[in-house]
Amino acid sequence: MNGTVFLVGAGPGDPELLTLKAARLLRTADAVLHDDLVAPEILQLVPPTAQIHNVGKRCGSRQIRQEQINFLMIALAEAGLRVVRLKGGDPLIFGRAGEEIEALHRANIPCEVVPGVTSALGAAASVGFSLTHRNIASAVVLATFHEAPGHDAPDWSSLVSSSATIVIYMPGRDFAAVAQRLTTSGLDANTSCLIVSRATTLHQQVHLTTVRELPRAPKLPTPVLLIVGEATRLAMREAESPSSALSHFIQQAAALPALEEPAA
Amino acid sequence: MNGTVFLVGAGPGDPELLTLKAARLLRTADAVLHDDLVAPEILQLVPPTAQIHNVGKRCGSRQIRQEQINFLMIALAEAGLRVVRLKGGDPLIFGRAGEEIEALHRANIPCEVVPGVTSALGAAASVGFSLTHRNIASAVVLATFHEAPGHDAPDWSSLVSSSATIVIYMPGRDFAAVAQRLTTSGLDANTSCLIVSRATTLHQQVHLTTVRELPRAPKLPTPVLLIVGEATRLAMREAESPSSALSHFIQQAAALPALEEPAA
Repeated sequence: MNGTVFLVGAGPGDPELLTLKAARLLRTADAVLHDDLVAPEILQLVPPTAQIHNVGKRCGSRQIRQEQINFLMIALAEAGLRVVRLKGGDPLIFGRAGEEIEALHRANIPCEVVPGVTSALGAAASVGFSLTHRNIASAVVLATFHEAPGHDAPDWSSLVSSSATIVIYMPGRDFAAVAQRLTTSGLDANTSCLIVSRATTLHQQVHLTTVRELPRAPKLPTPVLLIVGEATRLAMREAESPSSALSHFIQQAAALPALEEPAA
Repeated sequence: MNGTVFLVGAGPGDPELLTLKAARLLRTADAVLHDDLVAPEILQLVPPTAQIHNVGKRCGSRQIRQEQINFLMIALAEAGLRVVRLKGGDPLIFGRAGEEIEALHRANIPCEVVPGVTSALGAAASVGFSLTHRNIASAVVLATFHEAPGHDAPDWSSLVSSSATIVIYMPGRDFAAVAQRLTTSGLDANTSCLIVSRATTLHQQVHLTTVRELPRAPKLPTPVLLIVGEATRLAMREAESPSSALSHFIQQAAALPALEEPAA
């Protein structure tokens, strides 16, 4: 009998932002296939008897193709194993989970998706500002510059004119190209934007700038999010407040608790 | 010395979609102020010695104003208590957390935001389809029809023409008005849309329809999400697959595990 594949979100970086359900599934997994960005504390939940495969495509010396990930996932499930496919953030936000779900359906493998905290919300929370703040932005757009093959680019002109806060996943290293795409799509070059590197981790860095100055922004370590819109100006005000979440975050970082929560 | 206020996301409904951090904070809270939509299993994590206040504005017989919530939250923190302000989903997505953060800053109360799994991602995961599926939608918009006083409405014409998947939080009961707003903004009335009621809970219900037929859709119990865009057609295909997450979800519902995960 085929095992089940669980497509599980590992959250934005901080291992404590894993869900209880993800923790339970990892502790009872027979095999785990994970991306590069998953914290080591999270992988320590996996029983020592389980197989762990790093199928990350970002930093590994091996290049693993999507078809190979699908093949491995299906082979393990067909062997009757309980498989966790662990992805950074939420599996359905730019995680190519759609393709993995289709492959599992074609192979008649039962699958279940477990959502996670997506990086945009992790970043906003750790800086302490609202992506949909009153009078400033009434909608949020999650988009990407790093389209998978076959993906169409989003209609940037429409997104820009909606006056929503735009969160760009995987903006890449060429911020001049990003700035140009935004301004030729009609965005005011004075629009505020916030670069968030390694959101919610101890290594989080933020840089507030404008779209005009984006090409001169520091190249911060990946993963990076670029949050565009006037709502990000509040982020700076927050960071300057002595009671802010951001200064609090920095104070707390040194005393981060272990992953295990105390018994109830 | 003032206590800290933690603005914490409780996730979309399933109590197991709480984060480990939220669980830890609830277990060590002195006072909890929660919305109506938080599952009782989650509140059971709070120690019996802690105060629990339901400040929900949705179903309660009492009407609690935002100013009263801010006042209570600040008063408890000024008494030195460790306060958890628990909100459904993610606190920064249409949860008015921005106003609460501002009030806490004015009162010089330290605050920290703990993100949660937002309902849109919970709904997509439990139905098992990707909001950003290849060739169909390259961006996701989170918007609402239930604007807080002082909020501007989003620019629906721009959002509609972006061809992103649009998730509408709190669409209200008047689906005819929603359909009219979408079509007068330029959306093809044949566009597929999915109504998800009480996402990720045992009582989840889904209804796939089109914008044209939306006024005749069943009135499902709140909270309801309306997901608009061709990506939702995949949801139906998923639901019809014998290995789908949705049929799997229904099978699993009867055997939902207790909230406590097994010891590592």
